[in-house]
Amino acid sequence: MREAEVRIEFQPSGQTVFTLQGTRLLEAAASAGIVVDQPCGGEGLCGKCRVKVLAGACPPTPAECQTLAPEEIEAGWRLACQTCLCQEATVLVPETSLLDARSKILTDLPDRSPVADDPPIHKRYVELPPPSRDDDAADLTRLKNAVGPLRADLEVLRVLPRRLRLASFRGTVVLADSTEMDCPRLIDFEPGNTEAETFAVAVDLGTTTLVAALLDLNTAGELAVVSRLNPQTRFGDDVLSRILHVRQTPGGLRQLQQTIATAVDEMIGELAHRQQIPRERIYDLTFSGNTTMQQLLSGIDPSSLGEVPFVPAVASGLVLPAAELGLHVHPHAHVYVLPVIGGFVGGDTVSGIMATALAEADGPSLLVDIGTNGEIVLLADGKLRAASTAAGPAFEGARISHGMRGSTGAIEKVTVDGRLRINVIGDVPPVGLCGSGLIDLAAELLRHRALTPQGHLNSPEQLPGDLLPDLAGRVTEHDGKPAFLLAPETETATGKPIVLTQQDVRELQLATGAIRAGITILLRRAGVEPAELQTVLIGGGFGNFIRRSNAQRIGLLPSAVPHHRIRYQGNTSLAGARLTALSQKARSMAEQLARRTEHVDLSSDPYFHTAFADAMIFPAADD
Amino acid sequence: MREAEVRIEFQPSGQTVFTLQGTRLLEAAASAGIVVDQPCGGEGLCGKCRVKVLAGACPPTPAECQTLAPEEIEAGWRLACQTCLCQEATVLVPETSLLDARSKILTDLPDRSPVADDPPIHKRYVELPPPSRDDDAADLTRLKNAVGPLRADLEVLRVLPRRLRLASFRGTVVLADSTEMDCPRLIDFEPGNTEAETFAVAVDLGTTTLVAALLDLNTAGELAVVSRLNPQTRFGDDVLSRILHVRQTPGGLRQLQQTIATAVDEMIGELAHRQQIPRERIYDLTFSGNTTMQQLLSGIDPSSLGEVPFVPAVASGLVLPAAELGLHVHPHAHVYVLPVIGGFVGGDTVSGIMATALAEADGPSLLVDIGTNGEIVLLADGKLRAASTAAGPAFEGARISHGMRGSTGAIEKVTVDGRLRINVIGDVPPVGLCGSGLIDLAAELLRHRALTPQGHLNSPEQLPGDLLPDLAGRVTEHDGKPAFLLAPETETATGKPIVLTQQDVRELQLATGAIRAGITILLRRAGVEPAELQTVLIGGGFGNFIRRSNAQRIGLLPSAVPHHRIRYQGNTSLAGARLTALSQKARSMAEQLARRTEHVDLSSDPYFHTAFADAMIFPAADD
Repeated sequence: MREAEVRIEFQPSGQTVFTLQGTRLLEAAASAGIVVDQPCGGEGLCGKCRVKVLAGACPPTPAECQTLAPEEIEAGWRLACQTCLCQEATVLVPETSLLDARSKILTDLPDRSPVADDPPIHKRYVELPPPSRDDDAADLTRLKNAVGPLRADLEVLRVLPRRLRLASFRGTVVLADSTEMDCPRLIDFEPGNTEAETFAVAVDLGTTTLVAALLDLNTAGELAVVSRLNPQTRFGDDVLSRILHVRQTPGGLRQLQQTIATAVDEMIGELAHRQQIPRERIYDLTFSGNTTMQQLLSGIDPSSLGEVPFVPAVASGLVLPAAELGLHVHPHAHVYVLPVIGGFVGGDTVSGIMATALAEADGPSLLVDIGTNGEIVLLADGKLRAASTAAGPAFEGARISHGMRGSTGAIEKVTVDGRLRINVIGDVPPVGLCGSGLIDLAAELLRHRALTPQGHLNSPEQLPGDLLPDLAGRVTEHDGKPAFLLAPETETATGKPIVLTQQDVRELQLATGAIRAGITILLRRAGVEPAELQTVLIGGGFGNFIRRSNAQRIGLLPSAVPHHRIRYQGNTSLAGARLTALSQKARSMAEQLARRTEHVDLSSDPYFHTAFADAMIFPAADD
Repeated sequence: MREAEVRIEFQPSGQTVFTLQGTRLLEAAASAGIVVDQPCGGEGLCGKCRVKVLAGACPPTPAECQTLAPEEIEAGWRLACQTCLCQEATVLVPETSLLDARSKILTDLPDRSPVADDPPIHKRYVELPPPSRDDDAADLTRLKNAVGPLRADLEVLRVLPRRLRLASFRGTVVLADSTEMDCPRLIDFEPGNTEAETFAVAVDLGTTTLVAALLDLNTAGELAVVSRLNPQTRFGDDVLSRILHVRQTPGGLRQLQQTIATAVDEMIGELAHRQQIPRERIYDLTFSGNTTMQQLLSGIDPSSLGEVPFVPAVASGLVLPAAELGLHVHPHAHVYVLPVIGGFVGGDTVSGIMATALAEADGPSLLVDIGTNGEIVLLADGKLRAASTAAGPAFEGARISHGMRGSTGAIEKVTVDGRLRINVIGDVPPVGLCGSGLIDLAAELLRHRALTPQGHLNSPEQLPGDLLPDLAGRVTEHDGKPAFLLAPETETATGKPIVLTQQDVRELQLATGAIRAGITILLRRAGVEPAELQTVLIGGGFGNFIRRSNAQRIGLLPSAVPHHRIRYQGNTSLAGARLTALSQKARSMAEQLARRTEHVDLSSDPYFHTAFADAMIFPAADD
């Protein structure tokens, strides 16, 4: 699919992504880690997400013509939630269009300037006086005299004498800082001045999707982002089935560890290739994922997470040698794995709390990270509570008959306006249905009573008499049960019809019910009513693209929360990984947040089953 | 030769060594790390070295009968410098017979009780509450709650969940402390209570000889000692020839590292076998050697030590994974390599300063460690200066025509009393000549003018007229040059005569000259006259057995120093390794001493060549 990708450069950061033609600019920006604010929920109404397309702009949409002045459109201004990318483009994202949480984070980290002053790696070019009769200090002492106290790994010491002499004692000292050591660790002495080439990678280790960002530690800038499916899905599409694989298969842990490490390693190669940098110039890696994913990457047996009371091996953040995980970057690079809150609530949730500055919110606030594992964090009365809920991969398109990820060919939006309309990513014939389209479709079918609150797709004879003919004509059958035709075979890329089945609705109910039940329990524990929530922050790569009204319509989010309080945060796991990749203080803060947040084990809550059963029922049409 | 060894147990410590039949008790005790005081220089006169042989005593020698009362002899009292071991024995060494530096050391280490309270490894048996719904803390958190803050290596984390559960959460936490980390490192969780089994090994890494001691970290006691020739000698018998091997041979460094590591590993196996403990119960190793030996063990390229200005790779002490060096003890054990003072003056000298408490001596004091590399340290006006000098292996019996180490069959003592008499270790026909015998012989030949101050062995016609007939009759020829017959072929074990050649005298002159020149330069730098020296401490496995008067006669030690100020200290490198193996404070002290001691590069001293040339000349007979 590489041939359909276009290069998009974002200003002023200079970040570059390759994205599919037809991708919404908002989405492309998100994949570059730039989270554009969209108070109106991406409906093209508020104009908050305005960006200036400096080169490669597409014609304006009707919504843009309404919201922006003609001279603005002429000058290249567009709405990130509306305009699509049809060719190579350069886009200026003004500070005012960014989600304010990002700038807030920067100020929340003590003493933190936009460029972190305490990255885990720093370099210093030195010209050392060569040894002489009058100065016969040891090689390492000579280095210490130039750059201050340090310790060296054995492997570095073994090559240091030769390195220093080959480089005539001129070169770049590469130091890794760590909060656990009393002084920096010498990881290399590179000939010449390589100060400008100091890179790190931040990785969102999702159950279903992996996203990796290449960072420049000198500028704190993001240079490139890549993503791919987590290849562990072939061993099971949720974490429990992977834990089962480890428990039941000899060598299963090793298999899963190598599978994920190989995928990440390939992504690192892709990032390095795109920016034309050697892998060896990447000195630090940061991983943010749920507890199971983090343990699987580290090769730590997750079996105890597979049985009551779901105990992780370790809660604090880990610093591990990258080479021991099978990752090929600088040979002495370390990996930082974010701390875990408890049970399945892992580093991705800590990332979410950090990236959204949830802990500093005014009034009760909720963070919902929608993924295969859903995580929910509630701030109330200064206390943070977090829970994990097994939503399953339905929102990421798995276990849905014609489900797919939100990439080219995915029906990502479904509206009913006299008749059913679909929006396909890339403006191509549809291939399948992604999570946001699935929610849209269910919401519309509920609205038009083609779907009952219990989740039954009505058969032709059960349909309400006033149903729009276009909808009524689409009610069909699949495996002897009612189904709904989204796109006939003549319109699809595959030549097969795209259908929503009764089983698909059931999967959606399970996913929705799991997350909503978690929200209910946390609110109940804190004694907070949904209407009291000042902010509901939606995270997750996919969460960014759901429509709030439809999420409320199917009961995923409480309907008592006014639209404007629901804010999209993009991939908060990646955002948190990025923050902690850039700053030691951010790592300390992550450790503190993880310890400060109470882990709520939903499965042991006496009300959980009731709450789940209730949440499985879609709200009635007149709710 | 194992069949000729007898088992000797020392009380009250319970230490056991296996030693050759006929070994002097003093030497056997030294090889167990017990340094018996001998103010008279081992001449059987002062009675300071008295020990009580509880079982297995040999008949008393004439010297013992003179010094000890008959009832004392009856009760088993003997002089350690006189009595030999002819059978399995149990020996009580009273506190009063021990070299006082040892007890002094113990008090010099701040807060140090006889059992160090800060060993690098400590264990704690715990019975953890198993996880429950109400207590779902992570495994590592559960451990931390029981034993305090800690960090865990990845390899330990990988097995911890399973280990904890197999042991039903009851077992022994093994923690390694390190001054460089903010909290201990978890290296294992062992099922059951293994607190009593906490062992370490201290190693003296000599150029020619390796000595290893097994230590009990709970009692600070030494359980067993083994020694062997350094097998690296086949690549060269001094450090410079080994450095040359590294520089000239592809893979040479690896070859030398593996050779030494294999030997040490075998010695560890021998120690473990003798005490019937599993290797995995050894958790820490300490190495004390000269700079080159320490770098070769660590696999750090020593090439820069082979060229002016002789620069080590690293001066501070190293903490390295034992497994990375190829040593098979506990899989997560670390190795501590002592810090280096500078150039060739390595951890063995730091050990010597520590073990002799040199830094606290009253008045100007000298420490001379006699080995293949001779090290000299001078304390004067509170300042420590240290130098290394390439004595070569002559004192250890190498490069001498019939030279050998001080083991069974070695002529270890030569006296002239009307006629020439020899003393052979093990009371067997002689095989060769060891270092102390070589010094004795040269001293006697000088005294009787069979050897000139310039080092020429006189030919029969050059001999003084009044020479004892027994000596005159032994003057012979070897390769066309004068030589001296020590034992005729009819009396030796090999059936070949044992002869001192002109070349042997030359080697002795080089060795003596190198050490004496070093002493001269250090005294000159400090402005100290030899007569002002309050103490001259002699270290080195071999140094313990030389006769002071003869060492002065050949000019190895300044004759201006009264005999009673020359004190034997035994193997100070091993003693220092033992101290630092038992205590973290001792490690900190070693680092401070290494930094505090000035390294004097003899080869760049303008007076060195003159001093060396002067020291090559033996003192005149009437000196």
